[in-house]
Amino acid sequence: MQIPTGNLDRLRKLVRESGVDAIVAASPENVPYIAGVLIGTQRFFRERLAIVLWPSDRDPTFIVCDLERELARSGTWIADLRSYVEFQQSPIAALIEAIREKGLERGRIGIEYRYLLAPFWDELKQGLPQATWVHADALLKEMRVLKTPAEIALLERCNRATEEAHLATYRGMAAGETEKEVSDRLFLNILRSGADEVAFCYLNAGARTGMRHLRPGDYRLQAGDLVKCDAGGYYQGYYSDVARTVALGRPHPDQRDTYRKVHEVHRACLEAVRPGVAASEVYRVQKEGFARFGLPFAVPHVGHGIGLEAHEIPLLAPLTTREFEPNMVIAVETRHLIPNREGYHVEDILLVTERGARILTAREGTDDLLVVD
Amino acid sequence: MQIPTGNLDRLRKLVRESGVDAIVAASPENVPYIAGVLIGTQRFFRERLAIVLWPSDRDPTFIVCDLERELARSGTWIADLRSYVEFQQSPIAALIEAIREKGLERGRIGIEYRYLLAPFWDELKQGLPQATWVHADALLKEMRVLKTPAEIALLERCNRATEEAHLATYRGMAAGETEKEVSDRLFLNILRSGADEVAFCYLNAGARTGMRHLRPGDYRLQAGDLVKCDAGGYYQGYYSDVARTVALGRPHPDQRDTYRKVHEVHRACLEAVRPGVAASEVYRVQKEGFARFGLPFAVPHVGHGIGLEAHEIPLLAPLTTREFEPNMVIAVETRHLIPNREGYHVEDILLVTERGARILTAREGTDDLLVVD
Repeated sequence: MQIPTGNLDRLRKLVRESGVDAIVAASPENVPYIAGVLIGTQRFFRERLAIVLWPSDRDPTFIVCDLERELARSGTWIADLRSYVEFQQSPIAALIEAIREKGLERGRIGIEYRYLLAPFWDELKQGLPQATWVHADALLKEMRVLKTPAEIALLERCNRATEEAHLATYRGMAAGETEKEVSDRLFLNILRSGADEVAFCYLNAGARTGMRHLRPGDYRLQAGDLVKCDAGGYYQGYYSDVARTVALGRPHPDQRDTYRKVHEVHRACLEAVRPGVAASEVYRVQKEGFARFGLPFAVPHVGHGIGLEAHEIPLLAPLTTREFEPNMVIAVETRHLIPNREGYHVEDILLVTERGARILTAREGTDDLLVVD
Repeated sequence: MQIPTGNLDRLRKLVRESGVDAIVAASPENVPYIAGVLIGTQRFFRERLAIVLWPSDRDPTFIVCDLERELARSGTWIADLRSYVEFQQSPIAALIEAIREKGLERGRIGIEYRYLLAPFWDELKQGLPQATWVHADALLKEMRVLKTPAEIALLERCNRATEEAHLATYRGMAAGETEKEVSDRLFLNILRSGADEVAFCYLNAGARTGMRHLRPGDYRLQAGDLVKCDAGGYYQGYYSDVARTVALGRPHPDQRDTYRKVHEVHRACLEAVRPGVAASEVYRVQKEGFARFGLPFAVPHVGHGIGLEAHEIPLLAPLTTREFEPNMVIAVETRHLIPNREGYHVEDILLVTERGARILTAREGTDDLLVVD
């Protein structure tokens, strides 16, 4: 399907500054961003490559599997579209041919090194032994870090929709339901909110909330349980990512109290996001907040950019010096897990603005533990 | 989550025959098969590696991201479990250390070459310059090609469940519904049938059936439309994959006639699957069938193995000499697309038995075009 083409001026500028003669995009996030078309199977079949070759001084070439040619043609603005026959021709051979055609076989070529599979990488090096390969992963992440107005509108819409799907699901929740049944309803609510897919859904209750990444199972919800859920949809190529923790029936005062502490730290993290602040600062704020409450803290990060990938830069981690800038869209997440007892997880999406940040989710108050009766 | 451990005797035998000193599995299909535990995020985060190192003469080592350590511990039978801290430590460094520990730094190591990302591959070669690397992708595909009784039971259950989800969805279909609305109902039906996720769902109607891999959209179904759908669920690590084409309201006689031809070819393909027959034979049967009816034929394959991957060996393609064997589970698909006009697609799952094959799906007659009123 056609999606909004990204900020290609930014790409041109980054390419110019990096001094490469051409850039090669191959991942399911960078190809649609540049080509303006989403080839659904690209995420699914790791060897069915779609590739954009963009010389710094000429028009790009788009290479797709012949099965996807028609779909690509109907959606992309790139005129030079080529295809290969899967299992018979190599997508890398088509790329090498295009690079030669443009006289770049001795050029500096920026590639998605961290995305390429080993055999494709070896084939590329062997086919163009005189080229200089430049790792362009960071450049292409930078290309996508500041969202266009169309991307911001889509990310706001889809993250709000996912938050509403969470709330609608909890409102219908009752003791005796299994985690899987509640999760299935959340799936449907996310789909009905416009998602093409549910990207992930970790919904657990009771003592199981103390674990991370447990699939929803047969456990039946009981009054007094916490229900913790981290779920995201996939909307026209873009991800949503929202986590909530609610109580089924009257919570224990300790649960309310712990939730308030976790959420106070979360609130401080949300408020730390503004232009000019390093992403690591949010991590520091969360770490200090947990220390202040005497809660253990041992997570590798407390959030991330979000867009065509579920996790984009900047990573909100101790070593990330990258500063926030307007038009970044950021997920901030705060979690506190007590293994085999209970867990809390809250995650919201922010748009960085000129003067601070606007919370795209969490319109309804989440400061207090939401109780579902 | 814990899943049935695969046939490790078969793995040991294949490793012995191949003459490698150790095998390294890293993909989201081979790691759970060997370790007996599914780490859900492995499919989602390409760089969060989980790795099994299995020396030919000793017990295996299992390396996971520390975030997944608890989950791995709770599910795997492998005693030697190690972990790395994401973004701080390299999973490959942990692997190199384990290989050295076992004195195999000069050994022949079988790796998943086609799965490894380029930077991991380079790191591995640099870290163990004296090792000999053997591509073990084919060996590990062979390991999984004959299904265990537990796998057969699961694949039968989940593919039948997906077929039932298709039928239940069509029964409720009405003119005026959008493709997306019908598809959302199919998603829910697949989830309620026990799937953890819907792996893919390409549902289209009317002229849009002539395209492949279109996402369900806003098109509203009309009486007289064909509805074509290829959908699969993801059940405890295993895929289902079923395609159906039905008519909404009374079909045109030409549609009925074309469907019958397509299905006659499909039936001949199903019947061609039996032990000792090369997988390419099914392709030949389909190609000849289409030629006999004067229908165009231009697909790269007409089916594939299915299991922990949606597409496994053998691929039912012109060059596949691999013969069918009992306990293979095979998807056979027949499709006929007339771009911008209409399309037909039927796909069923077969279990190869001692004397032939048993169709796991298609219990209800699909010989005639199913009409939904």
